[in-house]
Amino acid sequence: MFSKDIYVSRRKKLAESLKRGFYLFLGNSEASFNYTDNQYLFRQDSTFLYYFGLDAPDLAAIIDVDNGKQIIFGNDVDLADIIWMGPQPTIAEQAAEVGVTETYPLCKLADFVKEAMAKDRRVHYLPPYRNLAKMQINQLLDIPFEYIKEHSSTEFIKAVVAMRLIKEPCEIAEIDKACDLGYTMHLTAMKMMKLGMVEQELVGIMEGIARTGYSVSFPIILSQHGETLHNHKHDAILEDGRLCVIDAGVELASHYASDHTRTIPTGGRFTEQQKEVYTIVSTAQDFALQKVRPGITYTEVHLDVARIILQGLKNIGLVKGDLDEAVQMGAQALFMPHGLGHHMGLDVHDMENLGENYVGYDEDHVRSKQFGLSSLRMGNVLRPGHVITDEPGIYFIPALIDKWKAEGTCKDFINFDALDKYRSFGGIRIEDDFLVTDKGCRLLGHKRLPHTVEEVEKEMN
Amino acid sequence: MFSKDIYVSRRKKLAESLKRGFYLFLGNSEASFNYTDNQYLFRQDSTFLYYFGLDAPDLAAIIDVDNGKQIIFGNDVDLADIIWMGPQPTIAEQAAEVGVTETYPLCKLADFVKEAMAKDRRVHYLPPYRNLAKMQINQLLDIPFEYIKEHSSTEFIKAVVAMRLIKEPCEIAEIDKACDLGYTMHLTAMKMMKLGMVEQELVGIMEGIARTGYSVSFPIILSQHGETLHNHKHDAILEDGRLCVIDAGVELASHYASDHTRTIPTGGRFTEQQKEVYTIVSTAQDFALQKVRPGITYTEVHLDVARIILQGLKNIGLVKGDLDEAVQMGAQALFMPHGLGHHMGLDVHDMENLGENYVGYDEDHVRSKQFGLSSLRMGNVLRPGHVITDEPGIYFIPALIDKWKAEGTCKDFINFDALDKYRSFGGIRIEDDFLVTDKGCRLLGHKRLPHTVEEVEKEMN
Repeated sequence: MFSKDIYVSRRKKLAESLKRGFYLFLGNSEASFNYTDNQYLFRQDSTFLYYFGLDAPDLAAIIDVDNGKQIIFGNDVDLADIIWMGPQPTIAEQAAEVGVTETYPLCKLADFVKEAMAKDRRVHYLPPYRNLAKMQINQLLDIPFEYIKEHSSTEFIKAVVAMRLIKEPCEIAEIDKACDLGYTMHLTAMKMMKLGMVEQELVGIMEGIARTGYSVSFPIILSQHGETLHNHKHDAILEDGRLCVIDAGVELASHYASDHTRTIPTGGRFTEQQKEVYTIVSTAQDFALQKVRPGITYTEVHLDVARIILQGLKNIGLVKGDLDEAVQMGAQALFMPHGLGHHMGLDVHDMENLGENYVGYDEDHVRSKQFGLSSLRMGNVLRPGHVITDEPGIYFIPALIDKWKAEGTCKDFINFDALDKYRSFGGIRIEDDFLVTDKGCRLLGHKRLPHTVEEVEKEMN
Repeated sequence: MFSKDIYVSRRKKLAESLKRGFYLFLGNSEASFNYTDNQYLFRQDSTFLYYFGLDAPDLAAIIDVDNGKQIIFGNDVDLADIIWMGPQPTIAEQAAEVGVTETYPLCKLADFVKEAMAKDRRVHYLPPYRNLAKMQINQLLDIPFEYIKEHSSTEFIKAVVAMRLIKEPCEIAEIDKACDLGYTMHLTAMKMMKLGMVEQELVGIMEGIARTGYSVSFPIILSQHGETLHNHKHDAILEDGRLCVIDAGVELASHYASDHTRTIPTGGRFTEQQKEVYTIVSTAQDFALQKVRPGITYTEVHLDVARIILQGLKNIGLVKGDLDEAVQMGAQALFMPHGLGHHMGLDVHDMENLGENYVGYDEDHVRSKQFGLSSLRMGNVLRPGHVITDEPGIYFIPALIDKWKAEGTCKDFINFDALDKYRSFGGIRIEDDFLVTDKGCRLLGHKRLPHTVEEVEKEMN
């Protein structure tokens, strides 16, 4: 938790930007694993954390701008709870820590909401992503489930996004720390990888390190079949000659995230074919960092990176034709069907729950519908204080290659026959996190993970 | 997953025991962490796993006993999914692995349910513990949320409980394996514990080991304030002279659980005061294992253990008076406010979602209302094939001591003044898992964790 002033000032700024209205903040509750009382690790809602700081289940809050009220709702514990959970501060004491002086038991929230509705005031809420929040909104506001998302408040979303997108110094310090623990986690995996290990063993080691902070920031992707982009199976035995994609981040107790990817040779040495493709990706990833500066859009960076990748693939005979035209037609998406990166902060995909198009796009920058570019999570103008990932990749996905070949997609730019000897190659992705500064950007975290072929091989041998 | 025959035979046995009716099995879906697509580790519903074996989200099944039908519902993946998740077997292929030949897309479930309802047939379902399942039942069966639990099917619950309580050899083999990994996890913590560590570091190491199986079977309890029974905070720095309670289990990929507790001195050596109390608990824990045999109730074992504990505490001057009377009055609950143990299997508290009183009690054995004994999760007759935990403890909980002293509770049996020098003692719990056999019981797992004062000190030094 940050100092009280941070939360007071954030709420003040939010209220000023909203000007008027009644705003509902639902904290998260515990989530059940295999029965009610066996619970997943608690995760507070990020927007609730951002404005109210309290990291405990079953809380809610309102900001009533018109009446100048800020209230936290929650229940104090009783003696039975103290026996099982230890002494706990009261809700009033907890609220005081974040500068809120008015508190009520959770059941009183309904009274405030119903009073506002009785006066024909709109109760603004953010789109819920947990089923319990949907049930709460359904019951509090009497909105049928199928309308809950569309009735969420665009003004509220935009005001929150505008603030959370620009990271404060206290937030950047936390993200630096998260990246430092992420560095340790990835470096440990590099050092401990051995042929014959089951992937899951490395996942366990990495998650153990993340848990010394708080948690992984998302389920670890670790696979010698990196061509499967979101592979969460880890049952393969590491075989010689494969590339292992490791995409993993940590979340600290403050809930700020890191997100790094490294692709490393299972046996510690890249083959010549792997080196060629790896170097294209590492060059493209570095290129993006040089290109980034305030005022440019991330779509521009993404497309420039795409061109670098196509140029590299042309050099090794997999791509042909005019590269500007190839980029325009989206030929790169055969190799990199995802976007170059995303905002990161309290969420590893920051504010994805509020709607990616509000976070990463705006009136002037609309998401493309082209395969590949449509997966770019952010296309708007970069500004100082943005925290973003830079994660290009090259994958050889047999199902996608076969589809494009059969359909003749981008046949003027792809040497489909030459791809045959890459069908079991797998995939490569390299990812770091950066902060947009006044003049360009800086990598987050105090050390950069091994990045080039030479650096990776040195670390592993 | 076990062999097809196991699932076929379980469903046959269930259908025979139910005789008639229409039974709905809802599998679990993904659960969101901080936005929809950032998900907790997937956990299938245990009853779905037990009868249908398929360990994937968004599945459902029905057994229509009257019409001899067994159907699995789920959706096949499309090309977009294959790119992101890799090639997947079809639902029909997956169902065939567990001996089910009829499958439909998930949306067809509603047709079958509505057809049954249209014929005035009751749709039996189990009490849901996840909000999505509540929403599904609300929508499929048109039952208001507040009635969902009470409208769940007692016949269905009882038939499932009767089968799952008696573990099959293939299940016992998995639980043995889970206990073996649990052994490694606890032993590693014992070896790595050092003064000055933050508790969370040990938690990370242990969770990392659990993750090489699948997961922890419940959130790790690890605290030098063991008097807080369900303490999930791990922010304390390990100080010399404390006892650290570590209650942790693993869950394998088969989802069978282990659950062990050890209480170890932070600095590797017990004080004399700690040795005295520890020895009472370890003796009581061993005593329970000697006492267990088919035909006895776990309430009897619990109360005999309570007497052993009170006798030990009387020997060191904390308890006085007639011990039989003290047990009857529940004096032991000041020191051990919880029950001696619980069933364990696919859930660490097995089938807690179906209702503890159906699992641990029956018509002839009703749960006590006395403080302490009311927390005993099982009081029914032990039978061969039961898998149960044995976990007595002694805690000095200042809030509870003060309450009993002020109220005069059990004042004839407790030397409240003598408790003063135990106020900062903390707590001790020791737990192993056992199988009820034809003649008695056997510990699960191939090695027993260090158990006596001598064994623990030897391991830590």
